[in-house]
Amino acid sequence: MSKEKKVEQITDMEQDFGKWFTDVVIRAELISYSGAKGFFVLRPYGYAIWENIQAMLDRRFKELGHENVSMPVLIPESLLQMEKDHVDGFAPECAWVTYGGSEELEERMCIRPTSEVLFCDHWAQVVKSWRDLPKLYNQWCSVLRWEKSTRPFLRHREFLWQEGHTLHATAEEALEETEQMLEVYAELYEDYLAMPVIRGRKTEKEKFAGAVHTYTVECMMHDKKALQGGTSHYFGDGFAKAFNITFSDKNNTLTAPFETSWGLSTRSIGGIIMTHGDNNGLNLPPRIAPVQAVVIPVAAHKEGVLEKATELTERLKAAGVRVKCDTSEQSPGWKFAENEMKGVPLRIEIGPKDIENNQCVAARRDTGEKTEIPLISLEENVKTLLENIQKDMYKRAKENLITNTRAAKTINEAKDIIEKHGGFIETMWCGCEECEEKMKEEVGVTSRCIPFEQKSIGSTCAICSKPADTMVVWGVAY
Amino acid sequence: MSKEKKVEQITDMEQDFGKWFTDVVIRAELISYSGAKGFFVLRPYGYAIWENIQAMLDRRFKELGHENVSMPVLIPESLLQMEKDHVDGFAPECAWVTYGGSEELEERMCIRPTSEVLFCDHWAQVVKSWRDLPKLYNQWCSVLRWEKSTRPFLRHREFLWQEGHTLHATAEEALEETEQMLEVYAELYEDYLAMPVIRGRKTEKEKFAGAVHTYTVECMMHDKKALQGGTSHYFGDGFAKAFNITFSDKNNTLTAPFETSWGLSTRSIGGIIMTHGDNNGLNLPPRIAPVQAVVIPVAAHKEGVLEKATELTERLKAAGVRVKCDTSEQSPGWKFAENEMKGVPLRIEIGPKDIENNQCVAARRDTGEKTEIPLISLEENVKTLLENIQKDMYKRAKENLITNTRAAKTINEAKDIIEKHGGFIETMWCGCEECEEKMKEEVGVTSRCIPFEQKSIGSTCAICSKPADTMVVWGVAY
Repeated sequence: MSKEKKVEQITDMEQDFGKWFTDVVIRAELISYSGAKGFFVLRPYGYAIWENIQAMLDRRFKELGHENVSMPVLIPESLLQMEKDHVDGFAPECAWVTYGGSEELEERMCIRPTSEVLFCDHWAQVVKSWRDLPKLYNQWCSVLRWEKSTRPFLRHREFLWQEGHTLHATAEEALEETEQMLEVYAELYEDYLAMPVIRGRKTEKEKFAGAVHTYTVECMMHDKKALQGGTSHYFGDGFAKAFNITFSDKNNTLTAPFETSWGLSTRSIGGIIMTHGDNNGLNLPPRIAPVQAVVIPVAAHKEGVLEKATELTERLKAAGVRVKCDTSEQSPGWKFAENEMKGVPLRIEIGPKDIENNQCVAARRDTGEKTEIPLISLEENVKTLLENIQKDMYKRAKENLITNTRAAKTINEAKDIIEKHGGFIETMWCGCEECEEKMKEEVGVTSRCIPFEQKSIGSTCAICSKPADTMVVWGVAY
Repeated sequence: MSKEKKVEQITDMEQDFGKWFTDVVIRAELISYSGAKGFFVLRPYGYAIWENIQAMLDRRFKELGHENVSMPVLIPESLLQMEKDHVDGFAPECAWVTYGGSEELEERMCIRPTSEVLFCDHWAQVVKSWRDLPKLYNQWCSVLRWEKSTRPFLRHREFLWQEGHTLHATAEEALEETEQMLEVYAELYEDYLAMPVIRGRKTEKEKFAGAVHTYTVECMMHDKKALQGGTSHYFGDGFAKAFNITFSDKNNTLTAPFETSWGLSTRSIGGIIMTHGDNNGLNLPPRIAPVQAVVIPVAAHKEGVLEKATELTERLKAAGVRVKCDTSEQSPGWKFAENEMKGVPLRIEIGPKDIENNQCVAARRDTGEKTEIPLISLEENVKTLLENIQKDMYKRAKENLITNTRAAKTINEAKDIIEKHGGFIETMWCGCEECEEKMKEEVGVTSRCIPFEQKSIGSTCAICSKPADTMVVWGVAY
């Protein structure tokens, strides 16, 4: 084994989940701290995961008729102020540009914390007739929020995301869009990131600044805490009216259109780590992994081993597998650990004995399980294994969610559950903000959402005992 | 013809090239002005061109081993100041963030005008051994330069680009990288944008702030002015030393590595417009056009026409052509003009007569030439036509470049050429900055580059008559 490189240990996740998370992020080379405080460098391996997320979403957005655009990174203060709830929500965490070169600006500008006002400003210029609708726009960019405390992937001052913004002739169409785009997020999480989600609506208290409704997909992490996976907002015609966007409808009447926006960020990568990772490091679902399989030659100095490893790699590449051959000078043991740390879903070992037997050994990252694979059916076997890993990872995450979601009829039951088990709690809720506050104070949880799939857990609010027909999911959120 | 929509006229390019350019940009819906002064909105059609440029470059970058990353959008002032030439070059046009939320920052930060210092800051942390080299990184992002006067695509306060940054163990390897990436830009321009380029090196006066050498690809616009298409910089180990980046080489000696950077921006879209456009509007090379062919039903109300148009569209789509069927309520004449304005390379007309004769009519955007195409060989014919358009557009641009590049032996000859013809001038040059200044003052041209392909136009500097063995290309630049 090489003297120079050692596999560094990471913190045990059962001992300190937060520290384990940071260790994984750094050791797997996803992120590195930056000289600009609160900012992070997304390194190649982390960015490659984001590129795979982008590829899936961008394809789906376009299939559904959306077009990409690019809006300015700066917003003049007066523009930000045009919608009251919105500016109240975002102004406190804006970064402000006050100088251009050596000249002080007449009006300061903030770096976009989100771009609703820029889209509205643009639409007010270009939308005139019903023929111009709908506008189905999306933008890939970064946004800034001046957070006090930061954490890799979960809370950056700057983060990468996509923000969709659409404008419609009718409220119905806009509402449909809001729901449709939430479903695209659910599809990303469930089918690609192997993370089950709860689809639902945010309460008034938790909704986006300026929205009529905010829909969300909520995920449960391995430590049973909640992560908001992505949100989709319905604005009604509030923004359109604030920005004086009108169109002449088919009867030639000037009308205000209806708007939506929806966003998903690099937080999702934090979600992948905290859902699937373990004490060996990252654990990536095959459909999103930058490298799906790594071929590792064992006793590489023996005749024919390196050649065979290269051959297998080429065969898998030709079959459409994202594969790499690790030919570095390190020992196989070091390579095993390193590729586990990086969460590569499948390891293919090939040594002299394997070559003799016309086989190789495939080891699953998720279970550690080893299978001997006849070389003749390599491609087929590897593909099946990757599909199985993807399915099993989803299943385990789903089990975690189901096992750790419990119904409570009273606030005391809720308290009891959180103390004993943690996780999510389902209760009936009367709909008032005071009860949400009380849950926060006494149980330490916030409402994650009002799930679209409602269950009945009695007919009274768990907090105030008034009649209630709405079920809420509560949890401790990242 | 619909009463509502009219084809608006654009300025004649021979009368006012600048106004013609802005008219095309706006009328073809590439860009729209933003409420933030000096900033632009890249609209879907403009962004789609950028996406095609991105796709080509990103593919080539990755084929050559590069990885994408994401660096912070903000640079602390002290970090920007670490390389002297660099800060002198960029600080005067930086936008400065001084407040985060309601708190004044202890140290102000600028929005990146370019990211050399951020990459160096990162590498100083992570590069330790020769095993960590080379680093071949690229970033897709926007940068800010606080320009006084702006112009769509050519001079924005914010523009989209890619910036490649690489770090190498040896100067030779870094120099090779610098040249290789310039060749990738040349490939983009020549093979995709149908724009011939002059490959060369910038003079000391014109090189990038902090670089040892700057390489460039220079293009000639239809009005014979020059556009710098993309640049690639070799930094030697200057930045590495300023940022204290070292690695232990194979002999275990601490050494400073060698760096490059290279960038290409949405200016390239300005170049496409000004190279190929005409008085009917935009004129896009097929390989970069978001829509390569538009199918327009003629007498669409007649039985079977719309169905046939849809069928042809589907067939072309299946054959891999980026095709659209224009089924809007407008008249065919309006659609013809509109699609010409948007520069769609090929128009396919299909009407009742064509259907009877089992044919359609294809009209080239670049020449206006019409061909009857038997429907049985539609796909093959359309693809051949698109290839021919691509080749012919390049040929015409190349002719423009050759015809309007003239050699001059003296500064008076140069003056004469510029007054009579404009265009590029080739002269011998002694290498001193005073002669460059003199050309600027007396002829009104700047040195575009020292072409890699040198010609001999005598043996003395055209400006000072001293011995000279370097040929320079001069021009008026955008």
